[in-house]
Amino acid sequence: MTFSISRDTLLNNLVIMQKGLPNRTPLPILTTIKFEVREDHIVLTSSNTDIAIQVLVDEDDLTITKSGVVAISGKYLIDIVRKVDSKRIEFSLIEDRIIVIKADRSEFKLRLMDANDYPEIDFLDGTTEPLTIDADLLKNIIRETSYAAAISEKRPILTGVNFKYNENKLYAVATDSYRLSQKELKLRSKSDNFDIVIPSKSLDELSKILDTATSDVHLYVSPNKVLFKIDNILFQTRLLEGAYPNTVRIIPTEFPVVIPFNKEILLSAVERVSLLSPKDKDTNYNIIKLKLNSNHSVEIHSTNSEIGDANEVVSPSADVTGSVINIAFSSRYLVEALKSFNSPEIVINFAGEVKPFVIKGTEDENLLHLILPVRID
Amino acid sequence: MTFSISRDTLLNNLVIMQKGLPNRTPLPILTTIKFEVREDHIVLTSSNTDIAIQVLVDEDDLTITKSGVVAISGKYLIDIVRKVDSKRIEFSLIEDRIIVIKADRSEFKLRLMDANDYPEIDFLDGTTEPLTIDADLLKNIIRETSYAAAISEKRPILTGVNFKYNENKLYAVATDSYRLSQKELKLRSKSDNFDIVIPSKSLDELSKILDTATSDVHLYVSPNKVLFKIDNILFQTRLLEGAYPNTVRIIPTEFPVVIPFNKEILLSAVERVSLLSPKDKDTNYNIIKLKLNSNHSVEIHSTNSEIGDANEVVSPSADVTGSVINIAFSSRYLVEALKSFNSPEIVINFAGEVKPFVIKGTEDENLLHLILPVRID
Repeated sequence: MTFSISRDTLLNNLVIMQKGLPNRTPLPILTTIKFEVREDHIVLTSSNTDIAIQVLVDEDDLTITKSGVVAISGKYLIDIVRKVDSKRIEFSLIEDRIIVIKADRSEFKLRLMDANDYPEIDFLDGTTEPLTIDADLLKNIIRETSYAAAISEKRPILTGVNFKYNENKLYAVATDSYRLSQKELKLRSKSDNFDIVIPSKSLDELSKILDTATSDVHLYVSPNKVLFKIDNILFQTRLLEGAYPNTVRIIPTEFPVVIPFNKEILLSAVERVSLLSPKDKDTNYNIIKLKLNSNHSVEIHSTNSEIGDANEVVSPSADVTGSVINIAFSSRYLVEALKSFNSPEIVINFAGEVKPFVIKGTEDENLLHLILPVRID
Repeated sequence: MTFSISRDTLLNNLVIMQKGLPNRTPLPILTTIKFEVREDHIVLTSSNTDIAIQVLVDEDDLTITKSGVVAISGKYLIDIVRKVDSKRIEFSLIEDRIIVIKADRSEFKLRLMDANDYPEIDFLDGTTEPLTIDADLLKNIIRETSYAAAISEKRPILTGVNFKYNENKLYAVATDSYRLSQKELKLRSKSDNFDIVIPSKSLDELSKILDTATSDVHLYVSPNKVLFKIDNILFQTRLLEGAYPNTVRIIPTEFPVVIPFNKEILLSAVERVSLLSPKDKDTNYNIIKLKLNSNHSVEIHSTNSEIGDANEVVSPSADVTGSVINIAFSSRYLVEALKSFNSPEIVINFAGEVKPFVIKGTEDENLLHLILPVRID
């Protein structure tokens, strides 16, 4: 097996493969990247328990002299290619299990694992009609929802994002049971309907790969996995098993109090107030209070018996609906929600002091964020 | 006690005070910054077991309405001032132990500790003749030596940098007993001779403060502490007790092999080779080998039975003195040493395969770095 390739082309592809390498694994072979070097292209594969990635490399700057299949340590290979400053890198198998990597005056000999031990990855064959979606749009949906998924594994299904496709409408919902983010949009794709839960960790890795996309993404769905086709990249992830909770019924529909804010002004006031706020004992997040006074001024407040108090007066950015309200919640949830909106202006809709409140952005169509209040003593 | 001050002036001074706050302390009062508000100025004090800092604030943008002395939580105060975006901040004591901090529409009430509990700091009175030194020069000396001091407390004296002043000559030496860095320079100051060991941690904090210096630094030395006067700042640190080892005798004086290198080329070759190199069991650092061949080519090499080998050929940047040598050492020591030099060209002087080698920079006058080799099996 002998080939040479431009350092930059190889590095760009390895950075994608890296997303498929496991952090820790009982199966040492999974710490490698599988190189299937064929006559005129190379197929790279990496995988862990959640994700499998395959890239077809057939760039013009690839020169293959002899084909073969090897499994090279992912970590060491990526470290080396990153640090090398030559234009081209040459790979050649000198013994059954040693590969020589040459780059200008650097020479590395890496011991290999047996490529025959690499597990066969069963990528979906893509015969069904895919859902086609713009790469930036998909990246945006992930950004708007994935952060609201649960981190704790108490209810595993909540560590994923629920994607539903029904009659040209795509819904994406994530919740950790304290807050929820929901996005809804129309697509012109002709895919079959589906209702799946994708691990949010997988989506975060996918999101980084989407940056390099130059064309639309195709989604192929099966009962237990989903395949994303992005240019010459296959990105497949397992799905979470079980039924995703019906979140529609927890979203209030009537809002007696509606307050519009400038997002940045509200965000910095909330961040200042939470500097002193006490931690909620369940979530360890800082609890703050928001109060709409009868004169329609808004105060954001925190009290900490040991340290002190913080109080901010924030003016609504336009007319307020409703009279007074006094509600307490985790400042982190509001901060993260505000940051997920693109709009400079947002609106908070209150259903009552012990009911979830809903945030919408004036320019973020069909994005809805919900936060559960905590009880004020 | 009532005063107001520009937010930027206060923050700049608080950032200096922060260097004196302890990471952890059994004495809660030390987590505060002491504010002594006088008729026309404020004296700020912070201190921990090593360092004490005092700053005199008398900028034009300070308006004092009522004097007084308070001790305000350093962490919370700095967090608040950093996050506030108003131009001015107003402080007023409303009860014996509560201070109100107002900035535009933000209001913070902080509980105070009793300022009477703040320990009296005995700053050197500065009656002796100080050593005067340019702030950038002092910063440079710290940068060139402090990193070579020991981190481990096995031999506490080695966690400091030895500063000796003798007949207008200043020597600074640091060593962790595996490598050593030494700087020597002439000063025109008339101070008494001294021989002190300053904790390297204190020097690292001092170094950050030196960035703001607008004039020369004055050093006042006593048997157990040293005071640095920088503009309106007093920075005092305890000294390490005990005799610093005589390092002169371990520096070889005869070098049969001398190899000049381009610093950046050598550095990147060493960094690449150490990607695969095995760890030294004592220091946990990567061991690499440097070999001068009879044809005067230099090879840098590492072997790792599990992972593989790395080899780099580096051309000396000018004529080599001596014939062959083959020496092993910790790559991290060489990397850190090379980074401390300003010169683009450096010279490595070898005294023998089991003797320390010495690095000098062609443009770094009177800076010497020494590294102990490890035995090659």
